[in-house]
Amino acid sequence: MSELTYPVGKLKDFACEIFRKIGCSDADASLATEVLLSADRRGIDSHGIARLSGYVRLWEAGRLNSTPNVRVVHETPSTAVVDGDRGLGLVVAPRAMEIAMEKAAAVGSGWVSVKNSNHFGIAGYHAMMALKSDMIGMAMTNASPLVAPTFSLDRLLGTNPIAVAVPAGEEPPFVADMATTTAANGKLEILQRVGKQAPKGWIQDKMGQPSTDPHELKNGGALVPLGSDYEHGSHKGYCLGAVVDIFSAVLSGANYGPWVPPFVAFLAPPADPVGEGIGHFVGAMRIDAFRPADEFKKNMDKWIRRFRSSTPVQGQKRVLIPGDPEREMEAHREQHGIPVNPKVLEDLRALASRFDVKNPVL
Amino acid sequence: MSELTYPVGKLKDFACEIFRKIGCSDADASLATEVLLSADRRGIDSHGIARLSGYVRLWEAGRLNSTPNVRVVHETPSTAVVDGDRGLGLVVAPRAMEIAMEKAAAVGSGWVSVKNSNHFGIAGYHAMMALKSDMIGMAMTNASPLVAPTFSLDRLLGTNPIAVAVPAGEEPPFVADMATTTAANGKLEILQRVGKQAPKGWIQDKMGQPSTDPHELKNGGALVPLGSDYEHGSHKGYCLGAVVDIFSAVLSGANYGPWVPPFVAFLAPPADPVGEGIGHFVGAMRIDAFRPADEFKKNMDKWIRRFRSSTPVQGQKRVLIPGDPEREMEAHREQHGIPVNPKVLEDLRALASRFDVKNPVL
Repeated sequence: MSELTYPVGKLKDFACEIFRKIGCSDADASLATEVLLSADRRGIDSHGIARLSGYVRLWEAGRLNSTPNVRVVHETPSTAVVDGDRGLGLVVAPRAMEIAMEKAAAVGSGWVSVKNSNHFGIAGYHAMMALKSDMIGMAMTNASPLVAPTFSLDRLLGTNPIAVAVPAGEEPPFVADMATTTAANGKLEILQRVGKQAPKGWIQDKMGQPSTDPHELKNGGALVPLGSDYEHGSHKGYCLGAVVDIFSAVLSGANYGPWVPPFVAFLAPPADPVGEGIGHFVGAMRIDAFRPADEFKKNMDKWIRRFRSSTPVQGQKRVLIPGDPEREMEAHREQHGIPVNPKVLEDLRALASRFDVKNPVL
Repeated sequence: MSELTYPVGKLKDFACEIFRKIGCSDADASLATEVLLSADRRGIDSHGIARLSGYVRLWEAGRLNSTPNVRVVHETPSTAVVDGDRGLGLVVAPRAMEIAMEKAAAVGSGWVSVKNSNHFGIAGYHAMMALKSDMIGMAMTNASPLVAPTFSLDRLLGTNPIAVAVPAGEEPPFVADMATTTAANGKLEILQRVGKQAPKGWIQDKMGQPSTDPHELKNGGALVPLGSDYEHGSHKGYCLGAVVDIFSAVLSGANYGPWVPPFVAFLAPPADPVGEGIGHFVGAMRIDAFRPADEFKKNMDKWIRRFRSSTPVQGQKRVLIPGDPEREMEAHREQHGIPVNPKVLEDLRALASRFDVKNPVL
């Protein structure tokens, strides 16, 4: 069954209507849609429209508040803790980022740790919000425990992504957006769909031995931190995932480590929570809080051009700048539309029927 | 030739005298010694007393100012750029960290980008300065270009370490301190000394192919970013190293990428600098700028205990918390002394003779 392709606008209209159906205000539904679809536009299919039914199921399970009162519960001039009131992370995180940017505008930088939230889509979206204001943006989040620290059998961390967005001048911005594991869970899902094995170094089995079975997580296995094994630095990937967990959740009062509630609604959250919901951490630094923005951008352009013009290894066309592949995908999909996997399409059609959505396109 | 072991105090006295001999004030010599020896104490032998002669050679080459006027050249309430005036990074970085901590005390967080500096020892020292004030500390630095980005033949990045120190309550602090490469250069130096091959995935040859020769860097090869290769996420290690470079140098006005001056004095700095010296980035966040410190520490204790009590993979005794190995090494070496490699000892004896140091111990 081949994939059908839909214009971005059509998928947006559909997602927005679903978010309204579960009770989101028009503004929140638009924002959530914008964030969700930015994943599909940028080619991170696992975090986009494919997750729409997952958010709905969380709402049905009473774990997601579609009319949250997102509020600052503690702050200083450059920091804040935000309570997401069990809202969509897709809405809570941009609000938190706005607060970080307001603080950066006032005192140079702003850092916001968020509790009581849900999955926030792609980290890159939130980090990139800073670019338009000539700020560096950062975003990270903890997530359902699927990752075993180095030497551990237990799954204690999520894929805990980190995103950093840096403005440039004439060049497009530098945008890093990465899970702190060797491979993101979305890559396993793709292998599962096509029935292929995973490369060695992505997964361990329930005994902690390397495995290539993309279904291994269902059998008690785990994703491994960036680095794959101790000899290749997996303890560093573990450090990064741990820092994301601490900044996002221990600092805010969200659940951390193995207590992070699962994204999938069919699994119950731990009965002994150590905090509220899941946690994010976002930040913004004003460029001109360090040096004049035009000076910085001229140097970022030079940095980017030097790296892009590096001699490539034989068989590779070029050395990439973080953000290049996603930006090129975005340009392509804006023009040619977004391919939707048949299983996802089935899911969306079920949503349309469940909520009586008139959308002749799907 | 076996290694001799020296008490920490004896090595400190010696290093301090050498720093004074090259013109450092008593205070600067003490501080530089403290930072330098913290590496030996924590078991990161490549960054400690073994580098003392390297700093001296930089001074002899006129590239290091032993009486720098370290000063803030731009600031906001939560940010600053510091000009290190070509001083020892061992002195410049702690000053920058003090400024970051003062800002954190005042407005919740402080972030300082540093230009015109030199090698700053271990990143962990600077990050850990924050612990005593109930702050989270961060430190990173760029370094001589030895690392090829994913798909690149050119060496454009240093091993660019990141350190994050987080206070706990009854448990010892969480201290991550990691190069953003699969293996730090110091690990190659150890293999060179003992004549062993490196594991596959640490190094590439001058054609960009995997190599196990620890001398490969002399033949045009390169270290590779954390992840080892594209399939295992080396583009993420590349992202991390790039972020360190940008925060440390593009933000401050230091040299970046392939323009970073080499630590070794026998190699001339690039003739077309894009900034001044090398760059660091340090930061501090007050815990109680987010939530009450005792609440946070109670949760950090819980985090640490849960991770430490994870079921280990067969053949491993336990799951480590970042900072465990270094803290245990520190306790051991405080009691039993620091082993000094014969080649390093030769170096130190040459320094003693060159500067007419009366130190009967060495």
